[in-house]
Amino acid sequence: MLSEDEARQLYRESIHIDSLNISNWGPEIFQAWRKGGITVVSCTCGLWEDFKGTIANIVQWKKWYEEYSDLIMEITSIEDIYTAKKLNKTGVILNFQNTSGIEDQLDYLRVFRDLNVRQMQLTYNTQNYSGAGYTELRDSGLTGFGREVVDHMAVLGIVCDLSHVGHQTTMDTIEYARKPPCFSHVLPSGMKESGRNKTDEEIRALGAKGGMVAASNFGPHMKKGNDSTIDDYVEVLEYFIDLVGEDLVGIGSDASEGHARPSPFLEWCNKDKGYARKMTEWGSAPVVKPLGKLADREELAVAMARRGWTAERMRKVLGLNWLNYYQRIWEN
Amino acid sequence: MLSEDEARQLYRESIHIDSLNISNWGPEIFQAWRKGGITVVSCTCGLWEDFKGTIANIVQWKKWYEEYSDLIMEITSIEDIYTAKKLNKTGVILNFQNTSGIEDQLDYLRVFRDLNVRQMQLTYNTQNYSGAGYTELRDSGLTGFGREVVDHMAVLGIVCDLSHVGHQTTMDTIEYARKPPCFSHVLPSGMKESGRNKTDEEIRALGAKGGMVAASNFGPHMKKGNDSTIDDYVEVLEYFIDLVGEDLVGIGSDASEGHARPSPFLEWCNKDKGYARKMTEWGSAPVVKPLGKLADREELAVAMARRGWTAERMRKVLGLNWLNYYQRIWEN
Repeated sequence: MLSEDEARQLYRESIHIDSLNISNWGPEIFQAWRKGGITVVSCTCGLWEDFKGTIANIVQWKKWYEEYSDLIMEITSIEDIYTAKKLNKTGVILNFQNTSGIEDQLDYLRVFRDLNVRQMQLTYNTQNYSGAGYTELRDSGLTGFGREVVDHMAVLGIVCDLSHVGHQTTMDTIEYARKPPCFSHVLPSGMKESGRNKTDEEIRALGAKGGMVAASNFGPHMKKGNDSTIDDYVEVLEYFIDLVGEDLVGIGSDASEGHARPSPFLEWCNKDKGYARKMTEWGSAPVVKPLGKLADREELAVAMARRGWTAERMRKVLGLNWLNYYQRIWEN
Repeated sequence: MLSEDEARQLYRESIHIDSLNISNWGPEIFQAWRKGGITVVSCTCGLWEDFKGTIANIVQWKKWYEEYSDLIMEITSIEDIYTAKKLNKTGVILNFQNTSGIEDQLDYLRVFRDLNVRQMQLTYNTQNYSGAGYTELRDSGLTGFGREVVDHMAVLGIVCDLSHVGHQTTMDTIEYARKPPCFSHVLPSGMKESGRNKTDEEIRALGAKGGMVAASNFGPHMKKGNDSTIDDYVEVLEYFIDLVGEDLVGIGSDASEGHARPSPFLEWCNKDKGYARKMTEWGSAPVVKPLGKLADREELAVAMARRGWTAERMRKVLGLNWLNYYQRIWEN
């Protein structure tokens, strides 16, 4: 069993990838990532935005890459991930939490891929052209257009994320997709019943296809609710490992650091299309994030060691599993 | 029983409303309407177009209203329908066959209402934000956003059309809508099995709510296929009358006059979003339209009389039913 010091040493030497952040972007967050020793973060640059709104967000990132080049760098390849680690910078992958940015144009997938959006959630919480989110009245399943979107994403090397996607659409997509999708930020409904959490059936189906499942960090959807700790978070990782093995599990914190709760931003997230009906109650409820602050991410390795994890399992779950998965999706 | 001369006389004195045309717009069509003595035509100005594409189509109509003011006029009210009849012009109502034109913005419904788009089909043949078209893999039913669209349409006085809409979405919308929807251009699957045709259950449910059902004019989906005649068309009207009574049945020819078959336009219609996968086979198959040419529409009254229709029933189905229905939706 690793000591606390050994765990901290291992963390500092490891590649750590966080597959979902939706923080209040800017230099404070970039500094927090550095303090936290996070190698790569997948950052949401589109949730309800249309094509132009998404492009504007991406342009802002391109400017930040230049302005804060001492802290962050754009990830354009697997090689860049190793470079970020070597240079002690945090690499940024852009992601969508919705395919609203492509509007009804399959060709826009290529545009966004070329702008280094390498991970896209098929739907946010409601129906779109491709399928249904988990709060929708009924679940359309993967639509005809959705099949074309998934096909294009496979060819273009874009990760297909199903975290907020409804059950039927999730199962359809896992079955249909030629490349394994992922759950970039989820919790298991086997530990706490919630429409947002993923069933054992969904997690097993994903794992059987070779897809990654990463644990998010949202107290209310964990077994002990807002009393959950970082040790409970590691227990979630172990739950996933029991279902899919230790090569397909990762960290996807869903960190929303720097946003007040409630805030206009979170209210925008929580209304269909950003302005229509309210979708869930969580926008105004208190939320504990058991992983803690981004700058304290090293504590996760300590907690893993405390639960008796091997060094190999720690390295895999902290980052190598995502690295290998990204390689399979991006480069093949 | 009315003689042929009496039938022609009745037709010329009656208001005749055709609730769906998708012809190759321009002066030839406007002249054909005049020759055919058609009082009002509901014209598709949006099918796959986004907001800007739809606005461009509407601007073209505004220019045509000016340039061909001897033949056509914009319908902005029920009163305008009587004026069109009196002036011997054809009044134009604009319609959508899809809600793609509003993109994800409920407020655009008001913009289009104010531009006199007074009839909107909730979906074309595939999934959109509001629901599923009849060719979709699964049927989402009316979505949460779709409920908001239907609510807004009711408040704004826009007719909600369910012709190409899938079964579940059709049934959900009939149940949910506070104002009765319509089928502006359909055929009964009780006479010919087709995914595009409406079941007796759907037609009865619509009628029970006070919604209009209008017969389209597409040989392949009629009982005798492309051997169908104008008398078979009148038989379709009688089938609808048996289901919902003679006050809720009308004419919705779906005339596509002036388009070659196949043509780039029909191929565009028949691909999802106008460019993606092909949806049906009809784009390239031969199609007989038993109502004949727009300029010969008077023959419909002769056929009605031949089947022994009363003058009252003829006036209702030719136009008064649509007039009354439009009044209920637009003005209340």
